[in-house]
Amino acid sequence: MFDFYINDNIDAVNAKFEAQKIAFAPLSFQAARALRNLGILDEISNARKKGIKISELSQKLNISLYGIGVLVEMGLGMGAIKVHKDSDDDDLRLTLGKIGFFLMKDEMTQVNMDFSQDICYRGAENLEESILKGKPAGLPHLGPWKTVYEGLSQLTEQEKKSWFGFDHFYSDLAFPEALPIVFEKPVGRLFDIGGNTAKWAISCCKYNADVKVSIIDLPGQTAVAEKNAAAAGFAERINTLPCNVLDETTAFPTGANAVWMSQFLDCFSLEEITKILTKIRKAAAPDTDVYVLEPLWDKQRFEAAAYSLQATSLYFTCIANGNSKMYRYEELKKAIEVAGFELKEAHHNVGPNAYSLLRFRIK
Amino acid sequence: MFDFYINDNIDAVNAKFEAQKIAFAPLSFQAARALRNLGILDEISNARKKGIKISELSQKLNISLYGIGVLVEMGLGMGAIKVHKDSDDDDLRLTLGKIGFFLMKDEMTQVNMDFSQDICYRGAENLEESILKGKPAGLPHLGPWKTVYEGLSQLTEQEKKSWFGFDHFYSDLAFPEALPIVFEKPVGRLFDIGGNTAKWAISCCKYNADVKVSIIDLPGQTAVAEKNAAAAGFAERINTLPCNVLDETTAFPTGANAVWMSQFLDCFSLEEITKILTKIRKAAAPDTDVYVLEPLWDKQRFEAAAYSLQATSLYFTCIANGNSKMYRYEELKKAIEVAGFELKEAHHNVGPNAYSLLRFRIK
Repeated sequence: MFDFYINDNIDAVNAKFEAQKIAFAPLSFQAARALRNLGILDEISNARKKGIKISELSQKLNISLYGIGVLVEMGLGMGAIKVHKDSDDDDLRLTLGKIGFFLMKDEMTQVNMDFSQDICYRGAENLEESILKGKPAGLPHLGPWKTVYEGLSQLTEQEKKSWFGFDHFYSDLAFPEALPIVFEKPVGRLFDIGGNTAKWAISCCKYNADVKVSIIDLPGQTAVAEKNAAAAGFAERINTLPCNVLDETTAFPTGANAVWMSQFLDCFSLEEITKILTKIRKAAAPDTDVYVLEPLWDKQRFEAAAYSLQATSLYFTCIANGNSKMYRYEELKKAIEVAGFELKEAHHNVGPNAYSLLRFRIK
Repeated sequence: MFDFYINDNIDAVNAKFEAQKIAFAPLSFQAARALRNLGILDEISNARKKGIKISELSQKLNISLYGIGVLVEMGLGMGAIKVHKDSDDDDLRLTLGKIGFFLMKDEMTQVNMDFSQDICYRGAENLEESILKGKPAGLPHLGPWKTVYEGLSQLTEQEKKSWFGFDHFYSDLAFPEALPIVFEKPVGRLFDIGGNTAKWAISCCKYNADVKVSIIDLPGQTAVAEKNAAAAGFAERINTLPCNVLDETTAFPTGANAVWMSQFLDCFSLEEITKILTKIRKAAAPDTDVYVLEPLWDKQRFEAAAYSLQATSLYFTCIANGNSKMYRYEELKKAIEVAGFELKEAHHNVGPNAYSLLRFRIK
């Protein structure tokens, strides 16, 4: 656990400031988007250390002095924009602040901001209701589905761009570091549960000449996975098993040396995770390694990354499915152990986004 | 101008964190509201230094462990909630953070948060459009009016509560300090332009036994003002002049020793301010004192207060009228001077919310 979750070192003046940032969050959020979308941050950035006056911004961008003014002033409050030390009080000269740099240029920040706007903004109003009803009460703003997964293909182009942009940004980056850990011992057969687009399966086949991978996922996903596997030249070594992992009337096949679940369990509640692992338990041999790759918010290197995961949990609550989230180390480990597993190894800080790679065996 | 608008002292790690706070603002805002509305902050606060476990919160409030979990975790990220140093990793023990205290107990924070939700949240999505079109493009979410002022009486009860709660919280607090400044010299007749509910007029009559006040405002307002003045026993000393201050075909009456405008000019654009002052100029004598009481964001004592004013500007942009804002000292002063006035005196930091009281005379 981070020290800053335990110590309350902020002084009252700054605590009150933070509270105002939260209290006015919808307005500052939309101001940040407008500063970016209208090209204001771009122009200020282009002006570099010399800076640019409000009147020049207004002329260059053909936006009223008033419009530039209100956005820039909120930008000053947010620390996104700075006033040049030689500024004229009559027509402020502006430079880009570090926070503005991240809002404009940092891919993670952009991906998060677009996701917040296009997927979460309206449905976030139903967060409280989602918690009380145990279902994603904000989802109807996007479409009439029980979970967001049912509706992904029916989202608008803008919504799809933001959803997949967010989804893809975080996954995959941990794969290069995870591969040597998984293939330290020989793995003849690997089951990739929730294998999605076959990215991990293809990575495995490229990394190791012998492994055969079975992707276990919903039928819609396995169709895509098969196509991708074939296109990558691994039709012989990657096969698929379409099924619903939560269906207790079916069994998993046996014979895997390793079972792999990457950023998969956070789509389920702790109870469902125990159910899924119980099903895996029945098919596992004593020497089957069960790998779980997840970003755990209490194992992050940076407060900002933990914050992103905590906020992503709220997306699961009010938009995605109403019952899953980004987990803490202890709670995820426990939900898996309850199904009859034992943690054998834990690698934290895997990849640039500090994923945790956990290895379990049956107890 | 604050030093922190000029110096960019934040390090990159914290700048990225601030950017994530902005990027996920809609979710954290709704989480803060849910933490407050569901009584979670209350229960944590009641548990004082000993703290309370997540499982205990869940039982006491009859909310799922999952629901408490996602909200509390976002609360940790926001610094609103802290983890007790002797917490069990399996069932976190929580205490209230300083930021959580302000979210829960500070009247200003609550007033701002309710205003953001009930008046601004949906319309904030139209901020960019409002700037490009020069009109409050978010207002249709509340009703089919040209400005919010036309629709105030038709807002829902919840919306009214939040709008007036916000409006009233900030006004009036500077009056006790302003009265001795205005009445330093004898004032026989005072014009209170935008006198609204007659609060200032009544305060003047109470403070000074001789003054007579004329309230100049829109007819809807003057009707209320007359009633209030009579109820306070000042029907003889307070009269009203219903009119539209922007109407250039009418003239203001002459004969005032002092003209008073409290938190009035921020409802108008700089051009309109010059127009209003030009009209006042025509009715003013050389010894007429024109007083302007305004919160100016660059004359605040605290960054949090400046931030609140900058955010309030955005409300004017996308909800209220599309063209006014909370001003900087220099720009407001200039718009008044252009109408033929000269600044004679400036008192900053008047009252607990750091209002500026400016005295002008014709040039």
